[in-house]
Amino acid sequence: MMHPNDPSLRSFVTVDPRSDFPIQNLPYGVFSTASQPSPRIGVAIGEFVLDLAALASAGLLDVPGDVFAQGAINGFMALGLEAWSATRARISEVLRHDNPELRDDAALRARAIIPQRDVTLHLPLQVAGFTDFYSSKQHATNVGALFRDKADPLLPNWLHIPIGYNGRASTVVVSGTAIRRPHGQLKDLGDAGPRFAPSRRLDFELEIGVVIGQASELGERLSEAQAEAMIFGFVLLNDWSARDIQQWEYVPLGPFQGKAFATSISPWIVTREALEPFRVQGPAQEPAPLDYLAQRGANNYDLALQVDLRTPAMAAPATICATNFKYMYWSSVQQLMHHASSGCAMRVGDLLGSGTISGPGPRERGSLLEISSNGAEPLALPGGERRSFLEDGDSVSLRGWCERDGLRIGFGAVEGTVLPAK
Amino acid sequence: MMHPNDPSLRSFVTVDPRSDFPIQNLPYGVFSTASQPSPRIGVAIGEFVLDLAALASAGLLDVPGDVFAQGAINGFMALGLEAWSATRARISEVLRHDNPELRDDAALRARAIIPQRDVTLHLPLQVAGFTDFYSSKQHATNVGALFRDKADPLLPNWLHIPIGYNGRASTVVVSGTAIRRPHGQLKDLGDAGPRFAPSRRLDFELEIGVVIGQASELGERLSEAQAEAMIFGFVLLNDWSARDIQQWEYVPLGPFQGKAFATSISPWIVTREALEPFRVQGPAQEPAPLDYLAQRGANNYDLALQVDLRTPAMAAPATICATNFKYMYWSSVQQLMHHASSGCAMRVGDLLGSGTISGPGPRERGSLLEISSNGAEPLALPGGERRSFLEDGDSVSLRGWCERDGLRIGFGAVEGTVLPAK
Repeated sequence: MMHPNDPSLRSFVTVDPRSDFPIQNLPYGVFSTASQPSPRIGVAIGEFVLDLAALASAGLLDVPGDVFAQGAINGFMALGLEAWSATRARISEVLRHDNPELRDDAALRARAIIPQRDVTLHLPLQVAGFTDFYSSKQHATNVGALFRDKADPLLPNWLHIPIGYNGRASTVVVSGTAIRRPHGQLKDLGDAGPRFAPSRRLDFELEIGVVIGQASELGERLSEAQAEAMIFGFVLLNDWSARDIQQWEYVPLGPFQGKAFATSISPWIVTREALEPFRVQGPAQEPAPLDYLAQRGANNYDLALQVDLRTPAMAAPATICATNFKYMYWSSVQQLMHHASSGCAMRVGDLLGSGTISGPGPRERGSLLEISSNGAEPLALPGGERRSFLEDGDSVSLRGWCERDGLRIGFGAVEGTVLPAK
Repeated sequence: MMHPNDPSLRSFVTVDPRSDFPIQNLPYGVFSTASQPSPRIGVAIGEFVLDLAALASAGLLDVPGDVFAQGAINGFMALGLEAWSATRARISEVLRHDNPELRDDAALRARAIIPQRDVTLHLPLQVAGFTDFYSSKQHATNVGALFRDKADPLLPNWLHIPIGYNGRASTVVVSGTAIRRPHGQLKDLGDAGPRFAPSRRLDFELEIGVVIGQASELGERLSEAQAEAMIFGFVLLNDWSARDIQQWEYVPLGPFQGKAFATSISPWIVTREALEPFRVQGPAQEPAPLDYLAQRGANNYDLALQVDLRTPAMAAPATICATNFKYMYWSSVQQLMHHASSGCAMRVGDLLGSGTISGPGPRERGSLLEISSNGAEPLALPGGERRSFLEDGDSVSLRGWCERDGLRIGFGAVEGTVLPAK
């Protein structure tokens, strides 16, 4: 059997060479259709979804119980690394151009291979806990320079700890969910006291979300190998932020309502295995991390990221950021090792946001806060509009993909449009 | 039918007048027995547990499905306020001294009324999200005076916002669970860099946890009446804290691993309804809260709280704090209104920690950090020992009860003993 990452593999399903979803990707999602409204699990292949529940009930997939006839991927993830690999290899085999099992079964093909335009995509996992990190050195530097000290923007702990905080799991939503502008306490410089009003500094944050597929015990710390084996896959993540709410509330216990109203993720979970060919070494870490955070593996990924913004007046979206996941100072594996370092139990379905991903260049800033220097230098858009922060009706779309030697492993997009405050 | 809070009610089950669990209380918990190891829901009555699953299957309780034959109270809570009230009234009726239904059914009594010493108590709810507030003015003042400014200890936002942060739901554990001393990054003043080592400043925090029994929608704000109707009940909560880990990590995104290793709660959830007779007006709020936080109800409770500490060398525990929930500046209802104010969806099973509860007196400080002034004035214990922070083998027990005119509504205790670091 060929490895499912083998670039020479082809499917009998026609896949455009520019598609995010060739047979070497096979990302998992949860979908439903008008004719069969109960959500179930599928993989994306080109412009189609392969219905894994249909495949399993036809006897073509060997998985326990009804693990794919579920509205969340958690049950499948709980089966563990070997099941993940074996299932992905088997799905790849079933989709191969030279395998007649599904290819030549017209009735099953009609049931199990569904155009993506005919499906509704749902939140792919039940989010057990949502943790958001702050692991891009360039982002932390940009923010520190704005609010702290241009000459010394990083706080003393930043180079030692993958700084993170617990977010709100209940408001993680799938791409396409409209984002209602939140109310909150706002206090401008010079105001005697705060008022309760709609946020005026609504922002996006370009992030990657790590989906944890295995649990750890209370009191257990994780080795690099253990942490890596617990990572099921990755999604695009937009950590919507109300900068004005956050600024007044965050001392001393961190962000709360300024981040609680919505976090959007892409509908397809790209597996860690599919990203293996794109591993790269991350930035040099100096000072060297403490032993419990030491890593020997190349745990970053060469994963291009792009943010598109479209205002109601624009005919087409404009790309306002193009950066790369490989710039992350702290890797996802290090974030997870730190997360469990106190003995904190990890759960199947935990979602770990990378933190805003900014690169070194001026076009590589992953939030409007950075792009507009907190409003001091509004972004000029095609057509003459300017943006310091998001306005009602603005649509933000994040995209991500790995690409090399003609092989493209993509994430699709995560999109959200801002609705006026209620 | 008499109201289940009526002080004249008596049960055929003998209840000591000093018990926390008279017929007017009826707190919910999850338990199992050696002979029937699957967890199910019961209420405490005196020294016994009444098995609600047994009662329902015998036809004495009218609840849908097997809502009490569950390992968590969430399914019952999801039924809503009317079901909570009706069920409590019916349980009260079944337990009355003059009702023969259960009293005279010897076989059912043998199955359904079980001595507490014969049961194992489990975590009573599946914690959907854990949020920890910081709503005792005296505690915030004590901490601010230690770390910030004695003359101006409160941060500017504190009198306007019920400050809170998202905690870690996966490590909420039931009373009796041993607490492993966590490792973490520690950096003393003057150290060149941090080291990874067991915490040396392990502490407890005396809190009350609010159990949310109804959900709210994404984008929905809550009125005072709505927020109140979503509160199912209350537990004792010990928010174990590693002060040294927290101190180095918490800037700028708040506590993370310093609070992530364990949070203990009492096994019995005392319903909001049972606490109704003990409502009191909270402290005056000046400046007046913004409209979205305004409350007309007396939303505090006259609920005595006590912390007992026992070291391995002590023959009996010593009471090291005695305070009251009524001192809370921000009420649980205000905390919940603020939590949803950005449109943050609340979930059945959310747990809201009050924050450390300290009162005005020197014996009313709800953490060792405050009691020992961060180690500057170690606590002297009977027998001559001293404690700045917790040492291995130390056991901490929180108790809480309301009492007036001979009626006592108690919480039992939440206990945890410190194990050495691994």
